[in-house]
Amino acid sequence: MSTTNEIQGPATDLGPTGDPKPYDLTRYRRIVILTEGHTTVTKAKTAIGLLRFRGDDVVAVLDSECTYSTVGEALGHGNDIPVVASLDEVDSPEAMFIGISPAGGRLPPAMRAAISQAIAMGIDVVSGLHDFLSNDKTLSAAAANSGSQLIDVRHIDERDNAKHVQFRQGCVRVHTVGHDCSVGKMFTSLEVQRELQRQGVDAKFLATGQTGIMIAGSGIPIDSVVSDFVNGSIENLVLANDHHDYVLIEGQGSIVHPAYSGVTLGLLHGCAPDGLILCYEAGRTTTKSLDHVPLKSLAELKEIYEWIASARHPCQVIGIALNGRRLSSEEAELEKERVAAELGLPVCDVYRDGPQVLADAVLELGKKVNS
Amino acid sequence: MSTTNEIQGPATDLGPTGDPKPYDLTRYRRIVILTEGHTTVTKAKTAIGLLRFRGDDVVAVLDSECTYSTVGEALGHGNDIPVVASLDEVDSPEAMFIGISPAGGRLPPAMRAAISQAIAMGIDVVSGLHDFLSNDKTLSAAAANSGSQLIDVRHIDERDNAKHVQFRQGCVRVHTVGHDCSVGKMFTSLEVQRELQRQGVDAKFLATGQTGIMIAGSGIPIDSVVSDFVNGSIENLVLANDHHDYVLIEGQGSIVHPAYSGVTLGLLHGCAPDGLILCYEAGRTTTKSLDHVPLKSLAELKEIYEWIASARHPCQVIGIALNGRRLSSEEAELEKERVAAELGLPVCDVYRDGPQVLADAVLELGKKVNS
Repeated sequence: MSTTNEIQGPATDLGPTGDPKPYDLTRYRRIVILTEGHTTVTKAKTAIGLLRFRGDDVVAVLDSECTYSTVGEALGHGNDIPVVASLDEVDSPEAMFIGISPAGGRLPPAMRAAISQAIAMGIDVVSGLHDFLSNDKTLSAAAANSGSQLIDVRHIDERDNAKHVQFRQGCVRVHTVGHDCSVGKMFTSLEVQRELQRQGVDAKFLATGQTGIMIAGSGIPIDSVVSDFVNGSIENLVLANDHHDYVLIEGQGSIVHPAYSGVTLGLLHGCAPDGLILCYEAGRTTTKSLDHVPLKSLAELKEIYEWIASARHPCQVIGIALNGRRLSSEEAELEKERVAAELGLPVCDVYRDGPQVLADAVLELGKKVNS
Repeated sequence: MSTTNEIQGPATDLGPTGDPKPYDLTRYRRIVILTEGHTTVTKAKTAIGLLRFRGDDVVAVLDSECTYSTVGEALGHGNDIPVVASLDEVDSPEAMFIGISPAGGRLPPAMRAAISQAIAMGIDVVSGLHDFLSNDKTLSAAAANSGSQLIDVRHIDERDNAKHVQFRQGCVRVHTVGHDCSVGKMFTSLEVQRELQRQGVDAKFLATGQTGIMIAGSGIPIDSVVSDFVNGSIENLVLANDHHDYVLIEGQGSIVHPAYSGVTLGLLHGCAPDGLILCYEAGRTTTKSLDHVPLKSLAELKEIYEWIASARHPCQVIGIALNGRRLSSEEAELEKERVAAELGLPVCDVYRDGPQVLADAVLELGKKVNS
């Protein structure tokens, strides 16, 4: 097992240079997700992503304060996977993944005890926080001692400026964008990838956030890149993957988000998409955690995104992903009809309906781009 | 003299909390600017900024390869300040400022010898490169030994997300934006500040790049901030300075620049300007260092900037700063007339004409905002 010093940052896919991945997060098959004190639908976003897309690799969720006994009850995902109060209750765990992504990226002090226990047991710990575990002297020293690997997926040293490259003709790029954070951009990208792959299409999800990286095994933690290199790091990621017929680039934030618009635009220009899937949560009217900031309408957002994206490369919104978690099934049907009529685009509640409608829109775009 | 470990990063202006500045770059009065092998108008951008706005504090420019004997001849600024081949030729230097800002921010190997000599002499070295001097073990050890301070103005640890704050009513915010890099955004901001101050107006330049920080003594090196915190770092900088009647926030890049658009938008939303000064170089048709990327027209840019800025706060372009270095005086007059007629805005070649026209536009905006 390697020491923490050998961990440089998350790997991108194998690029033209054939550089090996410094690690592969998909190799863990017995994962404990740590959500200590945070086992709720809004706080345990990373845990929920892992449960949905890597549920077979998860053996337990660890939260000594949680009153539910299964994650199905606690989070609505993961069915009978147990919620445990201690690592001692888990049979042969291989890795602990920290299952939260709080704004600011600090490590909750209540999580330290469980992390220390994992390290003492020689188990690898994977974190998506801005507070790097490998920078913590106490944890690092313990890991060096036990052989545990501390993997900070947001640890990255990108130093290339974007060059406005021409990606391979025939590689169709689809990017998820949104009206806000936490509306389902990663979820939609992954579900569309799954559906395209099910149909035998060569489609590749490109992760840009910590949860996506934990699911896909590699990617670029875009919000941790030094700002000068945001556009360039994504350009490089796409370039290393443009041998695929379709790439689905995970979006972040919103082009008008007070805190994250810079990240959103750098990502949008760096990946130069042919098409956008606009994701939104019906019924949300103000910005998450910023109640004094009203959200823009979908029509306004469609116009802004298409205009600013097309400054780099011709681009259009090809479909709308509705997050209908606040709606009944009947309300969701009405909402889809309303939005489809207003924007003249396919609308899909991916969670309820599956991603077929959007996968079709992606294939339609592909025909157009490649014609 | 303090050790390098005490240097955390560049100070912002004294904020509401009254935190002291960790250093003040304006205290050096006998500066040697290092441009080794780079004493040309396009490469020595930082040197030229220092010569124009802190010329009285500069005693020499150091370049052993330069064939000119004065910086006036070599760079068209700084008049009789000598170009020297060695630090030995300079009487009582207090600090060495590295006078270049290359894309990517690497330290040219040819500069190491002169830096080492400065350190050996106990002279402080100020750098705006991404390659931090303080991370270089050899240079750090030498500095610890001699008492020289290594100040990396791009070294910053910002960790606040923007909160879409309401700045003080009565603080008029003007931001310079451009059609490309290196067209005069810092220059225009500083000249307008000077003119407003000359008229007795309380105006403050807020630096966002390494050269601006070296000139003003403090600021935020925005392209070095982790992308998640770009908007927030600028929001904090403005918040700490909104006791001024006018703040002039230095712009970076361009909203459609392939490499830097993320930085540009984060900055634009973070400072929430009331007005923009759109800076451009007449005759430049393609993006600097990216000849395959044509530049947008001023009319298009005005529309994009106003639209995306106004998503945060009502904002308009109030004037145009023409960089006329490729034009004769007659051509510049014609260009100003043409652009003023096309856009219906005041146009000013700040270098030739002074900044009065733009200062007037800023004061006019102030009346409107405060009415």
